[in-house]
Amino acid sequence: MQKGNFVHEGKGKRVYEVAGEPGLLWLEFKDQLTAFNALKKGQFVGKGELNCRIATRIFQHLKEQGVESHFVNMIEPQVMITRRLQMVPLEVVVRNILAGSTAKKFGIEEGTPLKKPLVEFYYKNDALQDPFISDEQALFLETVNSQNELDELKRLALKVNDVLIRFFDRADIDLVDFKLEFGRAEDGRFLLGDEISPDSCRLWDQKTKEKLDKDRFRRDLGQVQEKYEEVWKRIQ
Amino acid sequence: MQKGNFVHEGKGKRVYEVAGEPGLLWLEFKDQLTAFNALKKGQFVGKGELNCRIATRIFQHLKEQGVESHFVNMIEPQVMITRRLQMVPLEVVVRNILAGSTAKKFGIEEGTPLKKPLVEFYYKNDALQDPFISDEQALFLETVNSQNELDELKRLALKVNDVLIRFFDRADIDLVDFKLEFGRAEDGRFLLGDEISPDSCRLWDQKTKEKLDKDRFRRDLGQVQEKYEEVWKRIQ
Repeated sequence: MQKGNFVHEGKGKRVYEVAGEPGLLWLEFKDQLTAFNALKKGQFVGKGELNCRIATRIFQHLKEQGVESHFVNMIEPQVMITRRLQMVPLEVVVRNILAGSTAKKFGIEEGTPLKKPLVEFYYKNDALQDPFISDEQALFLETVNSQNELDELKRLALKVNDVLIRFFDRADIDLVDFKLEFGRAEDGRFLLGDEISPDSCRLWDQKTKEKLDKDRFRRDLGQVQEKYEEVWKRIQ
Repeated sequence: MQKGNFVHEGKGKRVYEVAGEPGLLWLEFKDQLTAFNALKKGQFVGKGELNCRIATRIFQHLKEQGVESHFVNMIEPQVMITRRLQMVPLEVVVRNILAGSTAKKFGIEEGTPLKKPLVEFYYKNDALQDPFISDEQALFLETVNSQNELDELKRLALKVNDVLIRFFDRADIDLVDFKLEFGRAEDGRFLLGDEISPDSCRLWDQKTKEKLDKDRFRRDLGQVQEKYEEVWKRIQ
């Protein structure tokens, strides 16, 4: 496969076409780290490769468990080939344990487990800083066509959550929360897109409660690279 | 009726018991105006009386149209007697035209009419600055007991909207958006509580688009008192 025309550069990936394959995309995972809507920037060598490997492992596992994604294969250390989807402009967040801005929003201590997972929608729009929105607002903004479609996204997100809680549990990691993005395949079905990695999840060591994710960068906790490597080591 | 023990002081009202009537409350409407979670404060003499008269007129009209509220009667220029409800800690906002923070949140011009009204929930909590929440978060926070109850609040809010759009239309006023609060009566039913006034609504003159509500105070537009009086004059 050959890299085709440049399509788009996001915070974590550069996206290209695949020459001669209009249904596929070439995703290059960047070493860059960003936080707070890219106000804070950093990087470490090997971050792109680690995220690409971790996301590949997770997409493969999800497929085995019956959850389809855009993943096709990983062809270079930082390159993933995916199906080209028509992306839904929503970030779908699932929370199992309260942390970060949502803990603060409710005045509830970080680390409080939820009786059942919370699913939240954020409107994917950099200029508006990805605001949190309700189902009604998601429909008003025409992010999808119907409440049924929003319900389908929630169902898929909760299915991913079920699978990944067990997946990370086997690595002695608590899946605190994570962000998903979905897109439509040609047949109209929603498939999981983007990536699942320590950039898009909160992952805590079950015993020490140590953070193994991007919060190490957001909060200047140090050992960012070591902890991303630790996640990769544990889930192989 | 006689004023009883002090119960609570809010931003717009002081609340007392009614002596010998445990099912009633004595609401004194204050002349104070606040905005931005009370960071900005002002007042004008007669504001309490105007809001009390306007809210009384609106509650009476809603009752005639089949929407029940806590309103019992107005017994002094600034005093309303109401039923005592067990308040739901939600602000229920209905929008017909985009304005204020929500227009900004979506990057859409203030004044854009909505194809159908948007209903939004905010968690009523001063310390947390009344954050915007989704249905799922409203359930997580145990503001009500079920999705059915949230749906009932939405249904009631949209019914109020239907009635008040026509009510203000007869006064050549566009009802842009407004905030409602609900409480439970002894029999468990939700009744409309709090007040409906230029403090809690956005009201625009239909021809000039001039603001006839608290935005005059929020945005330092001047003529706050004159425009509150104008609303009262038009809806009598």
